[in-house]
Amino acid sequence: MPALRLGFVGGGPTSGIGPTHWHASRLDGHFELVAGAFSSAAAINRSAAATYGVAEDRVYASFDEMAASESARADGIEAVAIMLPNNLHAVASRAFLAQGIDVICEKPLATTLGEALELEQFHAEHPSVFVLAHNYSAFPMAREARAQIAAGTLGELRLVQVEHAVSSGVEPAPNSVAKPIGWRADPAIVGPSAVLADVGVHAHHFVRYITGLEVSEVAADLATLAPGRSSDDNAHVMLRLGPAVRGQMWASFMAAGHRQGLKIRVYGSKASLAWDQEDPDRLFIRPQHQPHYVLRRGELWTGEAALSATRLKAGQVEGQLEAFANLYADAAELIRARRCGRSPAASARLCPTLADGIKGMRFVDACVRSQAAEGAWTRL
Amino acid sequence: MPALRLGFVGGGPTSGIGPTHWHASRLDGHFELVAGAFSSAAAINRSAAATYGVAEDRVYASFDEMAASESARADGIEAVAIMLPNNLHAVASRAFLAQGIDVICEKPLATTLGEALELEQFHAEHPSVFVLAHNYSAFPMAREARAQIAAGTLGELRLVQVEHAVSSGVEPAPNSVAKPIGWRADPAIVGPSAVLADVGVHAHHFVRYITGLEVSEVAADLATLAPGRSSDDNAHVMLRLGPAVRGQMWASFMAAGHRQGLKIRVYGSKASLAWDQEDPDRLFIRPQHQPHYVLRRGELWTGEAALSATRLKAGQVEGQLEAFANLYADAAELIRARRCGRSPAASARLCPTLADGIKGMRFVDACVRSQAAEGAWTRL
Amino acid sequence: MPALRLGFVGGGPTSGIGPTHWHASRLDGHFELVAGAFSSAAAINRSAAATYGVAEDRVYASFDEMAASESARADGIEAVAIMLPNNLHAVASRAFLAQGIDVICEKPLATTLGEALELEQFHAEHPSVFVLAHNYSAFPMAREARAQIAAGTLGELRLVQVEHAVSSGVEPAPNSVAKPIGWRADPAIVGPSAVLADVGVHAHHFVRYITGLEVSEVAADLATLAPGRSSDDNAHVMLRLGPAVRGQMWASFMAAGHRQGLKIRVYGSKASLAWDQEDPDRLFIRPQHQPHYVLRRGELWTGEAALSATRLKAGQVEGQLEAFANLYADAAELIRARRCGRSPAASARLCPTLADGIKGMRFVDACVRSQAAEGAWTRL
Amino acid sequence: MPALRLGFVGGGPTSGIGPTHWHASRLDGHFELVAGAFSSAAAINRSAAATYGVAEDRVYASFDEMAASESARADGIEAVAIMLPNNLHAVASRAFLAQGIDVICEKPLATTLGEALELEQFHAEHPSVFVLAHNYSAFPMAREARAQIAAGTLGELRLVQVEHAVSSGVEPAPNSVAKPIGWRADPAIVGPSAVLADVGVHAHHFVRYITGLEVSEVAADLATLAPGRSSDDNAHVMLRLGPAVRGQMWASFMAAGHRQGLKIRVYGSKASLAWDQEDPDRLFIRPQHQPHYVLRRGELWTGEAALSATRLKAGQVEGQLEAFANLYADAAELIRARRCGRSPAASARLCPTLADGIKGMRFVDACVRSQAAEGAWTRL
Repeated sequence: MPALRLGFVGGGPTSGIGPTHWHASRLDGHFELVAGAFSSAAAINRSAAATYGVAEDRVYASFDEMAASESARADGIEAVAIMLPNNLHAVASRAFLAQGIDVICEKPLATTLGEALELEQFHAEHPSVFVLAHNYSAFPMAREARAQIAAGTLGELRLVQVEHAVSSGVEPAPNSVAKPIGWRADPAIVGPSAVLADVGVHAHHFVRYITGLEVSEVAADLATLAPGRSSDDNAHVMLRLGPAVRGQMWASFMAAGHRQGLKIRVYGSKASLAWDQEDPDRLFIRPQHQPHYVLRRGELWTGEAALSATRLKAGQVEGQLEAFANLYADAAELIRARRCGRSPAASARLCPTLADGIKGMRFVDACVRSQAAEGAWTRL
Repeated sequence: MPALRLGFVGGGPTSGIGPTHWHASRLDGHFELVAGAFSSAAAINRSAAATYGVAEDRVYASFDEMAASESARADGIEAVAIMLPNNLHAVASRAFLAQGIDVICEKPLATTLGEALELEQFHAEHPSVFVLAHNYSAFPMAREARAQIAAGTLGELRLVQVEHAVSSGVEPAPNSVAKPIGWRADPAIVGPSAVLADVGVHAHHFVRYITGLEVSEVAADLATLAPGRSSDDNAHVMLRLGPAVRGQMWASFMAAGHRQGLKIRVYGSKASLAWDQEDPDRLFIRPQHQPHYVLRRGELWTGEAALSATRLKAGQVEGQLEAFANLYADAAELIRARRCGRSPAASARLCPTLADGIKGMRFVDACVRSQAAEGAWTRL
Repeated sequence: MPALRLGFVGGGPTSGIGPTHWHASRLDGHFELVAGAFSSAAAINRSAAATYGVAEDRVYASFDEMAASESARADGIEAVAIMLPNNLHAVASRAFLAQGIDVICEKPLATTLGEALELEQFHAEHPSVFVLAHNYSAFPMAREARAQIAAGTLGELRLVQVEHAVSSGVEPAPNSVAKPIGWRADPAIVGPSAVLADVGVHAHHFVRYITGLEVSEVAADLATLAPGRSSDDNAHVMLRLGPAVRGQMWASFMAAGHRQGLKIRVYGSKASLAWDQEDPDRLFIRPQHQPHYVLRRGELWTGEAALSATRLKAGQVEGQLEAFANLYADAAELIRARRCGRSPAASARLCPTLADGIKGMRFVDACVRSQAAEGAWTRL
Repeated sequence: MPALRLGFVGGGPTSGIGPTHWHASRLDGHFELVAGAFSSAAAINRSAAATYGVAEDRVYASFDEMAASESARADGIEAVAIMLPNNLHAVASRAFLAQGIDVICEKPLATTLGEALELEQFHAEHPSVFVLAHNYSAFPMAREARAQIAAGTLGELRLVQVEHAVSSGVEPAPNSVAKPIGWRADPAIVGPSAVLADVGVHAHHFVRYITGLEVSEVAADLATLAPGRSSDDNAHVMLRLGPAVRGQMWASFMAAGHRQGLKIRVYGSKASLAWDQEDPDRLFIRPQHQPHYVLRRGELWTGEAALSATRLKAGQVEGQLEAFANLYADAAELIRARRCGRSPAASARLCPTLADGIKGMRFVDACVRSQAAEGAWTRL
């Protein structure tokens, strides 16, 4: 199969997330990066194109120009990856959806629920593929976790403990070359809760993906722990997932010493499971009445969802790029299926989309309302 | 130094906690068990005495009889360890305090805050030593954690994540010999929150001990997850520890697959630390701007508090009994100091006492009030 | 049951191993320390007695005096624990065996095979109980490992990888209070291989205990790695355990950064297992064709040997003292059985004895002969 | 920079190693696969080409045909990756070296030392780039380990413990779809030691890479543990690395339950380090006289060698494909430097080459001679 033609909006080689998208998009040969509006600074834009091997005549000063020019070419991009600050996700998505170009967009979907709902409406009228980059769900053993829960390994679900606690908001060391948190803590760019916009939405999507349950109600404590910060930087949230399941979420920028820090544990009537994104090839299953065991990526006795998302045998570690590449593989399947008018493969139908982004924004919105009501339980 | 003469109330060899107290009390030779009212069932009572090597004439049908008879003997017990269901802690304590006998009592202090405050008043009038068995604070590396925080290793404190989640409330397997949860989930015996009375108070004390901070405000979600249970069995609590520090607690009977399950993580402006009671000899320190390192019990570069609570060199694991024996060693020091009219050694002054039990009951009470107010933030 | 009367030879409170024996002997109430020849220095001897609560009139200047005096008392010691430098193990044992006193002796049995064989002969003529303190075999999950192998969990055995590598021979830091290696590296005291005498014999016994196999042939590389040392301090040994099983042993004083360092892995045709003395409550089973699982001390589905050697429930860590106490419990059973003329309980029959010590000395002897023959394969 | 044109010999999508080379070669855009002789079976050959996107006119029936045809094209391949059974490594390499095409060849270099030396001679006369795929040295934290040792973190080196023990030779479960070991245990294809040819040479190279030391002498026990096997399947080897450093190697096909299984520990006078290829982002440093610490890939305080081989920040796991891609990046640098007549960058000069392959074959040869001499110490 020929590679799909891909454009980048943002995502240059010196950005935080650009190289991840670039490596991941090309790992399996599903996409070829052929166009980009990498930066509003012309020199950086050109330099990014050179690094990525993008031809000079397909480097654009803005995403609007790119959407217009590429849609006019016979060999124009089929898909675009949007890696801009949050407040530009919706407007940039719209520019490409309007041209029938398929979209892979960084999370969160928008800065406010209102903006997200407008985008949902626009997408209903311009129904290209829209993939939201909740990459954690694309780890093979996250998919195995979902499959184990769906198969009843844990019994009836009762509890979810999830955290995505990073240290990006901790003050850098004097003279450090570490990047400050920048726009990710600017309310004008990220909306009413910075920490939920950046990491909370990942944790929320991950819970839904693994358990198949929806968060129905929240009680939130959104706090600012770093001196002088204008946004929140820590969220403690109590969760209700329907009438019978409780949960606890911790999302933070202030977890000094942490690195990436997404962890989930799910408890049922018969067993629990635990998965840690920093040790992604292993899924721990802890039955109440039998020895605890571990499932590893690549083992013959894992399920189809995990095996089909795996490249190497057990013991040869796969990591973040491979998970991201699984997301791109799903996106490619959705795009090819749409363009061929066929139904996509089952595995790709679990890929996070705009509908997940709407739910994420409803979650943020409910947490912000709970906070305004001094932590009262608040329905999504 | 001669061993102190000790009596047991409850705590027979087939009880959950009795053997732990017995092994721990004798490990270092500080106490000798010489009397007991192990059970209201006469045969069990006699059998327990035989197993523990207690003379027949010092086996009593009730704690009242024991307090009266032992205080009348020249060689009567100097201290008593109370291991009864929660609703008898206060009344049994009173019986021995009234006789000037020193008390080591299982947690929680009482079933309600009101009962606890009455005991506090009684103790003020009968000021024997009163040690409350919050044993986790007696692990050497828990003491090291406290010392590291006090020394500023973490910088300014910001966050506490604590959990004590066990699986005692999960339904046993059919035909299992595992014990059901029994009175620990009976509101008549344990008071308004079963799960906080059993494990939540441990977590609360542990946070205070490690950080030196007090919980000032809570927002709680107390839930019953097992079908047909009349008490709660899961608590999610958001914490405020003064104006600048936030926390999250999980206390549960329903953590299927868990064993003992006390874990704490504390985050500051410069570093975080992590300690797990199931891997007690290691304390993890995670600076934000340097490599993460691990401190092990017995190493020369740990502090005085940890070293003085250690018996074996690093690499030779110490465990729960040794921690409990540290608690008994502290109790022995408090008792000997009181009886000699001298000031106890500094290390023993950190030993949990009745005052800690009062704070624990205030915490439970605040959580119960928060729950009644639908999770509203509630001051202790 | 009344406690057995115990004496110590060596083993004062400031020695490396004395407190371990003391705590372990009293943990379960099987023994009471009532006499001792703790040190040839009178002041240290007296001070040790005071610390341990031994009466002044039962403190002896030498083990000979102690054996003679105690055997003359109606309430004389029933058993003695010998904790002297290696070259005195045999001669001290003889003094007590001659009086019909049961012996618990530190390893190794002797300094040379010849000396060991003479002791074997003497013991045949004076058949008291003789327990050799190979304490590692008394960890509950080491016993579970033995039971799993005996039950065929691994299939046919093929490979054993064992190491006991400590850092006691690494040069101390300048101004450190760490103890130098001292007599443990003095050939006059420990015999022809210091490192095998101290840790190699533990590893050898542990392999035999866990697998039920005997080492039949060795090829050894005994080296001196620290500058200026007169003994060896590192041993690499290739093992044959009968015709079909191969093994590899590493015994060392020079494993910088190590703490205690006994680890074993055993491989069969169907699965392998792994156990680490620094994480003693967990036994890892790794089937070739199924998920890997972990067995924890205290779980209902472990075997009788492990369960009967356990005091606390799973998740409440037991450690080195509890394992040592298991050895003392076995010793108590052997001693009581001999004194009652009955057969000891099955569990105690696995307790390491003089016969194991002979095999250990044959192993050391074969390694030394292999080394002399430039590493040639050498039969035990 | 334009991608280098690459051909494959062997390495189809269903082979064990082909997809790894394919993903790795394209991850960073250094190579584009444009030609192949993937299989001698025509249908498989064509199918492989289609999967990899190789044009039909550049699919060849043999490597000889490929070398001849490609070297005749203006746009012919610049480099070839050879993934054939061991006995064809030398002959295939020769075909491409003869045409001036740069070679990336799977290990081991040849089946016998004699064959390897002939290839060395041929290469001297046809000096294209020759990279040998000892991929483990390309993990960032393996490079950090080398840098730490070179910088003296461990003090003077004393001991190396290395193992590469897999389970590929354990009998498959009945009805399993797991692949049997096949030609990797056929002496006609792999030479006198199957297990050393497959995994022992990796371990040998890794020791040399990390420590900077050469193995000078070996004493080996090569065994056949699986019933009816005609090759060896387990090797225990004692190592001397110059006069002052000892080592122990375990290479195996028979480690039931293992997955990939390369681990190394190095001990010096001041500290030791440990690295495990199944947890590749972490390097453990264990000082003798300070707390143990861990270095993680991506942290600012790791060295240049590790940082320049890293793509993602700490906490976002990298794995086997990224390490392999580092090898391809080094190969690209060597190839571009040779073709430009410039000196390659320093990092690429550590890339494993034919000279390393010669040393690997000398190691295998010495072990085989030691085995023939009943385990006698044998010089390389």
